Amino acid sequence: MAIATMNLQLRSLIKQNGQLELSLAQISVDEPATDEVVVRIEAAPLNPSDLGLLVGAADLNTAKSIGTGEQTIVTATVPDKLLRGMAGRIDQSLPVGNEGAGVVVKAGASKEAQALLGKTVAVLGGAMYSQYRTLKVQQCMVLPAGTAPAEGASCFVNPLTSLGMTETMKREGHTALVHTAAASNLGQMLNKICIKDGIALVNIVRKAEQEELLRKLGAKYVCNSGASSFMDDLTKALTATGATIAFDAIGGGKLAGQILACMEVAAAGKMTEYSRYGSTTFKQVYIYGNLDRGATELSRNFGFSWSVAGWLLTPFLQKIGGVAAQKLRERVVAELKTTFASHYSKTISLTEALRLDNLAAYAKFGTGDKYLINPNK
Amino acid sequence: MAIATMNLQLRSLIKQNGQLELSLAQISVDEPATDEVVVRIEAAPLNPSDLGLLVGAADLNTAKSIGTGEQTIVTATVPDKLLRGMAGRIDQSLPVGNEGAGVVVKAGASKEAQALLGKTVAVLGGAMYSQYRTLKVQQCMVLPAGTAPAEGASCFVNPLTSLGMTETMKREGHTALVHTAAASNLGQMLNKICIKDGIALVNIVRKAEQEELLRKLGAKYVCNSGASSFMDDLTKALTATGATIAFDAIGGGKLAGQILACMEVAAAGKMTEYSRYGSTTFKQVYIYGNLDRGATELSRNFGFSWSVAGWLLTPFLQKIGGVAAQKLRERVVAELKTTFASHYSKTISLTEALRLDNLAAYAKFGTGDKYLINPNK
Repeated sequence: MAIATMNLQLRSLIKQNGQLELSLAQISVDEPATDEVVVRIEAAPLNPSDLGLLVGAADLNTAKSIGTGEQTIVTATVPDKLLRGMAGRIDQSLPVGNEGAGVVVKAGASKEAQALLGKTVAVLGGAMYSQYRTLKVQQCMVLPAGTAPAEGASCFVNPLTSLGMTETMKREGHTALVHTAAASNLGQMLNKICIKDGIALVNIVRKAEQEELLRKLGAKYVCNSGASSFMDDLTKALTATGATIAFDAIGGGKLAGQILACMEVAAAGKMTEYSRYGSTTFKQVYIYGNLDRGATELSRNFGFSWSVAGWLLTPFLQKIGGVAAQKLRERVVAELKTTFASHYSKTISLTEALRLDNLAAYAKFGTGDKYLINPNK
Repeated sequence: MAIATMNLQLRSLIKQNGQLELSLAQISVDEPATDEVVVRIEAAPLNPSDLGLLVGAADLNTAKSIGTGEQTIVTATVPDKLLRGMAGRIDQSLPVGNEGAGVVVKAGASKEAQALLGKTVAVLGGAMYSQYRTLKVQQCMVLPAGTAPAEGASCFVNPLTSLGMTETMKREGHTALVHTAAASNLGQMLNKICIKDGIALVNIVRKAEQEELLRKLGAKYVCNSGASSFMDDLTKALTATGATIAFDAIGGGKLAGQILACMEVAAAGKMTEYSRYGSTTFKQVYIYGNLDRGATELSRNFGFSWSVAGWLLTPFLQKIGGVAAQKLRERVVAELKTTFASHYSKTISLTEALRLDNLAAYAKFGTGDKYLINPNK
């Protein structure tokens, strides 16, 4: 089968002077080695984690566009005080896109590679905002017959992250959990997992319409952090569920500390004797996102039995080991069109991804406003 | 041997209206049960953790004294916004003093209790700012012949906490550590342990004279957080030592986050490829004190492989189990006059502990300004 030898790839570059530059590079398609295949990428989601690499710390209010079509270049400025945090990537032209799905159009000589020819596969491995990707057989997960690439594009990041949350909960001895920015695509997925698995989930959202959305999806505990009764609402939900672990996508501000404080009040309600060190109930908040890049402020009005820590999918999967991780992946495939179905508001091409109106829209991450890139559109 | 049946005990009470009241209560001495002894307390240190219970959130600038001698009552006001945090102890008259040492003057019928008669023992168990304490045999640790109560008064809190730090470091896979408020009594002890055990320790202090004090004691790495070069100094010390765990007595402010940020810079110096998730080097800060009661501010400019958590001695000892904890205690007794020697600036009676000038002095916890209470002075 003849395939193009040239290949468009979305690139993100931050220069020494603080200028972000987004462009499309023309690169050759690598020939597959024995254990490799070439995948024509037909769907790759724009996850919040992708945006982190795509625009870095640049201020999109400064975004400008020059050129047209495949020659479009978008520029924006990284504020001086944030440039230091970008030090590790300065002057490197980086490909973007954690995951995607497509069709195997060429295969190396090995039996395993040949078996994938013509199959629709979900793939993880970066640089997915490319027309073609040459990948190892092990990076491909065959999708069931009748699955379109768009249906399998988000097989890894959100499904495994949300499953990783309930797995972490169980493995660390908690019995219910809290999630913030809970109306997100990932949050809705977690909600479905918890309903299916009978796990009590306390959803924290910021707006009344997000609360409504989650309740319609069957969520029992939804607390609106914008409501004046938030702290009381949250304490009641924590008392009812016994949740002592939270996954926080926000990161900055007071929310992580508020969750710990309400968990402590819920735990203290069961204490019989005063301790100036607080309850002995261990309370955990994992920060897995950066929606608010400001500082995390912890008032520490929650005793000494607590932890706030970073959480990422890849180290989690490494920690639980290959067998356990494979079980999670198999569940994703089995429930791809139900529990793990993703919805996209718009499918755009690589060129369209560089249009300022699209960039402004997908960078907002409004609830239900998720974009899919089809590099071969 | 005849002992008093009445017994002075220091009490701390916070009333519903936010008034702190310190006084001396007259209470009876409990008769020892079979497995108990009565200890005449002759030395009990004023540790920062004791002060937390003694004055709570009260503002000592509002302290007043009425009455004289054993009838002295000291009052002070808890600011309204801090009163909620005191809810668990409102209207309870609480005894104070975690640890102490004294002589066994009466014993229960058991062989183990009788064996302690006349012995000088170190004791842990609260309410040590009392003239007599009836305690279980297991709460007493016999001090070697020739040890004065004052020499054994601080056998538990500081020695076991500082040993707990190096133990935690080893058990959690780190090879060097950071300590803040490092010129404290506890910090000097930790410094001696680390020199003896060949562990690299990065000491963080706030003043030049504290830096000098620690250097005179043989400390190799001392960083002054008041210096303009602090972040660079700390990064250099972390790079040189490879320290990835810190114990922070301060709690509030930016310091915990600054330590993580400098650890990340030290770790990133060894990275060969950019990752927007930061280094994979796991960085831990344990907050074990509250010298700054303000919020902990974490800038999160240190990737996702990090944890900030509370740390307390008692849960740590429970976690490592009785055998391991006993080994630590035995080391304390063996090195009581060397590694674990404490120095006090002043020894005061229970009545003197209620004098406003003394209260102001011991509540400051200036470096080298540690007080000892002798309830039988």
